[in-house]
Amino acid sequence: MKLRIRRVPLDTLRENVAVLSASCIALRPEAFQAFKRLEITHGDRVLIASLDIALDPSFVAPDQIGLTEPAFRRLGLREGAEVSIAPARRPQSLSSVGLKIAGATLTGAQIEEVVQDIAGYRYSDMEIAAFLVSCAGFMTSSELLDLTCAMANAGTKIRWTSPIIVDKHCIGGIPGNRTSMIVVPIVAAHGLVIPKTSSRAITSPAGTADTMEVLANVDLSVTQMREVVDACKGCLVWGGHVNLSPVDDILIGVERPLNLDTREQMVASIMSKKLAAGATHLLIDVPVGPTAKVRNTSEALRLRKLFEYVSDQIGINVEVIITDGSSPIGCGVGPVLEARDVMAVLQNEPFAPRDLREKSLQLAGALIDRDPAMRGGSGYGRAVEILDSGAALAAMNRIIDAQGRNSVVPALGAFHADVLAPRSGVVLAADCLRISQLARLAGAPLARGAGLDLLKRTGDKVEQGEPLFRIYAAEPSHFELATTAAREANGFTIDVISLSGGGVVQ
Amino acid sequence: MKLRIRRVPLDTLRENVAVLSASCIALRPEAFQAFKRLEITHGDRVLIASLDIALDPSFVAPDQIGLTEPAFRRLGLREGAEVSIAPARRPQSLSSVGLKIAGATLTGAQIEEVVQDIAGYRYSDMEIAAFLVSCAGFMTSSELLDLTCAMANAGTKIRWTSPIIVDKHCIGGIPGNRTSMIVVPIVAAHGLVIPKTSSRAITSPAGTADTMEVLANVDLSVTQMREVVDACKGCLVWGGHVNLSPVDDILIGVERPLNLDTREQMVASIMSKKLAAGATHLLIDVPVGPTAKVRNTSEALRLRKLFEYVSDQIGINVEVIITDGSSPIGCGVGPVLEARDVMAVLQNEPFAPRDLREKSLQLAGALIDRDPAMRGGSGYGRAVEILDSGAALAAMNRIIDAQGRNSVVPALGAFHADVLAPRSGVVLAADCLRISQLARLAGAPLARGAGLDLLKRTGDKVEQGEPLFRIYAAEPSHFELATTAAREANGFTIDVISLSGGGVVQ
Repeated sequence: MKLRIRRVPLDTLRENVAVLSASCIALRPEAFQAFKRLEITHGDRVLIASLDIALDPSFVAPDQIGLTEPAFRRLGLREGAEVSIAPARRPQSLSSVGLKIAGATLTGAQIEEVVQDIAGYRYSDMEIAAFLVSCAGFMTSSELLDLTCAMANAGTKIRWTSPIIVDKHCIGGIPGNRTSMIVVPIVAAHGLVIPKTSSRAITSPAGTADTMEVLANVDLSVTQMREVVDACKGCLVWGGHVNLSPVDDILIGVERPLNLDTREQMVASIMSKKLAAGATHLLIDVPVGPTAKVRNTSEALRLRKLFEYVSDQIGINVEVIITDGSSPIGCGVGPVLEARDVMAVLQNEPFAPRDLREKSLQLAGALIDRDPAMRGGSGYGRAVEILDSGAALAAMNRIIDAQGRNSVVPALGAFHADVLAPRSGVVLAADCLRISQLARLAGAPLARGAGLDLLKRTGDKVEQGEPLFRIYAAEPSHFELATTAAREANGFTIDVISLSGGGVVQ
Repeated sequence: MKLRIRRVPLDTLRENVAVLSASCIALRPEAFQAFKRLEITHGDRVLIASLDIALDPSFVAPDQIGLTEPAFRRLGLREGAEVSIAPARRPQSLSSVGLKIAGATLTGAQIEEVVQDIAGYRYSDMEIAAFLVSCAGFMTSSELLDLTCAMANAGTKIRWTSPIIVDKHCIGGIPGNRTSMIVVPIVAAHGLVIPKTSSRAITSPAGTADTMEVLANVDLSVTQMREVVDACKGCLVWGGHVNLSPVDDILIGVERPLNLDTREQMVASIMSKKLAAGATHLLIDVPVGPTAKVRNTSEALRLRKLFEYVSDQIGINVEVIITDGSSPIGCGVGPVLEARDVMAVLQNEPFAPRDLREKSLQLAGALIDRDPAMRGGSGYGRAVEILDSGAALAAMNRIIDAQGRNSVVPALGAFHADVLAPRSGVVLAADCLRISQLARLAGAPLARGAGLDLLKRTGDKVEQGEPLFRIYAAEPSHFELATTAAREANGFTIDVISLSGGGVVQ
């Protein structure tokens, strides 16, 4: 019994959802209770979807099947096309998930099947959650390696002609830490190829893609990205259209609401994207601090070992550096403010944040050191030279122009207020989590010009009533939220011990 | 910013789903990507729902919020009522799920919170899956106990005036094993109170509720159930309206598609329902066989220990008996055929299946032995007396009349065919899984009169070409499916060793 496709104007985000009438001619209504997954067939096209029931025939008629976005798009047929339906067979690979739950170690072939089925949207969110939670319980290094490779194989794999393709990645969690936008132009100006794809912010106040988008178009296809890299040796684009390790995006969509956050998942996520992107030399920045993602050095070392193991096996030359993640880097937190800091460093402005400049030079130097033509250890000096001479700024401008320069740079939020020091003393710490949270409450990253501008940094002296930071917001409701929250807790720890009298302050 | 409720005629089965317009006035469209869960508030009513986006304003307008079934029903407001929305706060108890995933043992209070949030529909299916998979990894006995009690506390708790309330439960998996419908009238006729609630078939060809429904109404409220039990000392009703351990039904809805099947989950599921039902004395039937749910005696013993531990702690007097699950019990498989077998046993018909009679007498005897007024070990004899005298039949007729006798008993399926022995010999085994599968293909349990009638049983001699079983179906398509499948594999193992020459046949 064939059903005709009806497009249902409902975006079910990632999951495929089909709608059958309660009086569907092809399946009896009682049968609906027994299963929640439906297999839709047209010739050799097969789509698996979760099932909802239309209680009103005007919504979906008995001889129709409703397809919501993205099921309609993924099946790729026109409205009215005829399809057959059947209760979905369980993807074979779910038995491997069952084994993993029961404590088994999976083979490469089993992991490959699971990843292929996830890539083909044949797993429900519930089934993906079961796979991820069973992996979070325990995962061997070889399972991690197989997962990484299977994920990289499931999407676009970019291959470059240059023998050395460098890349960098920060595991995140530090507000303002926008080093990529300085490292890429320095390294490209030096002459190494560095095709950087970045994500938009998910839980942070700005991702590199959000900040770069303040200055230029970041929404490039693989072909456009190649053109930019051919012309400029580097790029700073959003990874969304490049389809690198699409399974990673699917898994993150389930990990995030579940707050799943294991070392293994982090390594598989990052390395599968880098493998697919064709990187040969990779620098990974692991900031460590009490309010960073990685809280202590021993945890950072375990992460480093795992990155090194996987990289060695897949043939990527990796260097993991553990950096200071005790405080935000730079002054601005939020896309426009961070773009201002980045450009200030590239333009060698006297007010440019020194920590952002210094960290970027260290990272760029480490990457330049990979160049066979360079003498070991000379990378840092070369990076300084490129930055100070304006060559990095010129490279950045070439990249911005090649990607498509924004004619109008978004303005800072119209609403702003200073948050004042409640006492005099020395700033001992600024809480990364709280600073990020306040910037998000102010509207970042969706409001590009919203965020925080840090006026005092760790180690600075401060007088009672002096401003610690300025909140920018684009809308009154966000402004109200952020200022109220900052009054409750501003994230700054100020030591009140008198400076003249000595004490614990360094 | 308030939104008006619009009822969306879409049944999303168990999960709450809300629909916002892509141009919703209360939330900016970019914000949708960041979360999938929405909190809907009206006064002190709060509902958490997953979020879909309407791409067409005629579907859900910018100032409306669409509520699908069952979200509309659960919020309990009229169409047009105004509600506030916000991104849902994570239920606090999800942090306990995170701890469990990381390997922690949860406290009773933590488990209680998780169960309360699941009962309040505050967990998505994905989050429930995460909880279940983390428990499937490992679960201590005390966690199991806490889970059982929390589940029992989360729904209706029935309390009876009689000091002894007996109950029985079979963990299932054996086709035709419809002992409850014989045990209940025997035990009730003896004078013990046995208020039996049963489930409908989920993956089997018939549940006790499906089979009882052939004869009587099983769809009773708690009040109606009490009236039947007051009048008849026993009942055989569907548990669906009684709301015993509703969290169990929610968990099963996730366990089933994930094929999660651990001892701990089985014990929590059964014991929470029995605790809520007010049972004081419980008999659990664990059939063991190569094609049963429990495959070997050591697994059955582990299950028994777990039942005994939990029962001792919650104060239910339990007896776990391990029975022969190597073959189907009785002849009929499917509601009408099983009801026929049950009534044949109660009516002491000569053709009544002896194994069904014998097993029912054993179980009823074990329950009657719990009666303080009975001499130890005399239960079996008493059960035989009640059955043979017709007192059990009379009790069954009273129960049927009290629940509401069906004026018309559904007929057997109009399409039938015999499956013949491919060779002569002795039936060594009949595969429970295959027999169940064939009966389901024939249309059971939805088609009440569909199923299998087993004409040969384990131990029977059979000549080549003699019928092994008869398939009944109500529809040509099911008939075709079942007969084709039976031709491929009929589930019978026939030993061809000549009988006159001795050999392995017992």
